[in-house]
Amino acid sequence: MRIDRIQELLATHGAEAVLLTFLPDVHWAVGFTGSNGLLIVRRDSAHFLTDRRYEVQAHQEVRGAEVHVPGYELIEHAAKESLLGTSGTVLFQSDHVSVAHLEKLKAAFPDVIWLPAAAFLTGAVAQKDPSEIEQMKAAQHITEAVFEHLLGLIRPGITEREVAAEIVYQHLRGGAERVSFDPIVAAGPNGALPHLRPTIRTIQAGDMVVIDMGCYVDGYASDMTRTLAVSEPGAEARRVYQIVRDAQQRALDSARAGLTTKHLDAAARDVIEQAGYGEAFSHSLGHGIGLQVHEWPRVSYLTEDVLPENAAVTIEPGIYLPDKFGVRIEDVIVLRAEGHENLTGAPKDLIVL
Amino acid sequence: MRIDRIQELLATHGAEAVLLTFLPDVHWAVGFTGSNGLLIVRRDSAHFLTDRRYEVQAHQEVRGAEVHVPGYELIEHAAKESLLGTSGTVLFQSDHVSVAHLEKLKAAFPDVIWLPAAAFLTGAVAQKDPSEIEQMKAAQHITEAVFEHLLGLIRPGITEREVAAEIVYQHLRGGAERVSFDPIVAAGPNGALPHLRPTIRTIQAGDMVVIDMGCYVDGYASDMTRTLAVSEPGAEARRVYQIVRDAQQRALDSARAGLTTKHLDAAARDVIEQAGYGEAFSHSLGHGIGLQVHEWPRVSYLTEDVLPENAAVTIEPGIYLPDKFGVRIEDVIVLRAEGHENLTGAPKDLIVL
Repeated sequence: MRIDRIQELLATHGAEAVLLTFLPDVHWAVGFTGSNGLLIVRRDSAHFLTDRRYEVQAHQEVRGAEVHVPGYELIEHAAKESLLGTSGTVLFQSDHVSVAHLEKLKAAFPDVIWLPAAAFLTGAVAQKDPSEIEQMKAAQHITEAVFEHLLGLIRPGITEREVAAEIVYQHLRGGAERVSFDPIVAAGPNGALPHLRPTIRTIQAGDMVVIDMGCYVDGYASDMTRTLAVSEPGAEARRVYQIVRDAQQRALDSARAGLTTKHLDAAARDVIEQAGYGEAFSHSLGHGIGLQVHEWPRVSYLTEDVLPENAAVTIEPGIYLPDKFGVRIEDVIVLRAEGHENLTGAPKDLIVL
Repeated sequence: MRIDRIQELLATHGAEAVLLTFLPDVHWAVGFTGSNGLLIVRRDSAHFLTDRRYEVQAHQEVRGAEVHVPGYELIEHAAKESLLGTSGTVLFQSDHVSVAHLEKLKAAFPDVIWLPAAAFLTGAVAQKDPSEIEQMKAAQHITEAVFEHLLGLIRPGITEREVAAEIVYQHLRGGAERVSFDPIVAAGPNGALPHLRPTIRTIQAGDMVVIDMGCYVDGYASDMTRTLAVSEPGAEARRVYQIVRDAQQRALDSARAGLTTKHLDAAARDVIEQAGYGEAFSHSLGHGIGLQVHEWPRVSYLTEDVLPENAAVTIEPGIYLPDKFGVRIEDVIVLRAEGHENLTGAPKDLIVL
């Protein structure tokens, strides 16, 4: 059980308790999906607190912790009921708790010694269990169905924004809670700006179109990028597409638990550099994904974390040629001891609409 | 100019500089709308820093500060270039800066004395100028056009989720950047749960349907709630609707700058209590709105802030009857010395579809 895992971490840190306030971590620990709640884990008990809006939902969802439903003042209630114990050392999530919030905690619990714990659950949360992988697949399936739909919709004359609106709509119609980020639809030269918002530019014959999208289902994220051509894009675009495709394949062939993030990034980056486009691959290869669409580990030439078994990460090399076009291809994979499982099934050979 | 306003606050606090890291405040101060940036305001200069993704956008948008575009390491660049000066007292946004982030700041600027400043710009940001009101109206107009569209769409047999998907789609088609929160569509008994997510329940003849929605345009939010009847809802629903309508009108008639939030809340709450439904109005009357859909001041029986001139707030009384239905009506208004300006034009007499 995940509470047991947290209690092991308490012992490692030599603390009596931990106060978890970062909601994706609370979701991971006890299953709560609402927008207000906190979790106290002690060596021999666990307490979840939320407000009355979530009374029914908390009793349905929360596993492994006693549920408390006071008014809005969760910290005050925890103090009154001595849910942290009366003294001792308590960990808090120092990468998520503001300086002002810590002052409130100190005032509410004058006898507690607060210990900062950054990235407290990062390593544990990264390692997905089979049920989490199933939830991520469910989100991914919706995104792939939306992609299928787009193939019948994208044509010269439609604007990037119209396509983006359709992406959001079809995800919601397909059962997503929400999109996991504002979709990117970047046609022709706009594709060379990796994070441009969709514009009122109409898609034109000959355009390469970068589409990056995803959603949340039951709190778990999908994320997928494909690049399409709208009628024949020309020899340079085809050549660059194939380089990105090869770079991604090389990374997929290399991917396994135990590699460093820098090593995995290099597998794709080497292919792009050898083709002469190193400068044009201006971002990292990928990022962890799960209860947040971007989470640890960052798969980058700037980081040297060891990739844990069962971590889910994106593999998304790209080449961006100013004033011309961009190409990016992105899958989500799960790292295994001997390789990986690819959660993304949408085709990757260049589609010319 | 807003930088001047911030420099006045520096003098008030006796500080040499302030580091602004909360993006809605940075947007307010210099106009930047991207997702990564920070602003340093000193007594005689101002420096805005962002990463290369936003190089073009920053030069287009930022007013009143020198633009710096280093790599991703903004704090390190600020230290290297001594953008905070070499010593002295510097304010930081203690309600937004995490404990771990403050440690990084201390390490990067070993000679700076960091002073916590919670709610540093809250009062200034609350007072909207005419151009901000115009931007809020633009967002509001899109939301009202979506409402018009819904009147032709909602009918027995459609699910709450289908209506919610349509709300998001029509906002995006209408020019919104995104919705300002996941829309609420709560029919019949679901309406009695003020923050329930849209379900697969089909709307039925006789249902009251609570619809709460909004969007962002140029960073500014809209927010509107209307409650519709789908065919005749019956005498109790009509009576409760009229009480909420009267309560909202009483608050609007009372609203002016200089009142306390508690006093304004009471104007509506008294009407509902006198009608015998006090327990069923289970939330505050409203909230500030602008660059965030929820910002200071909270218009509540729990707060006694004085409402500043030109602050924009929602006025949204509601009555929720378990297992029956809910009614909420919400407008956005701007407080003036002698009254208010209502930014919301959608009709408020009960619409029976």
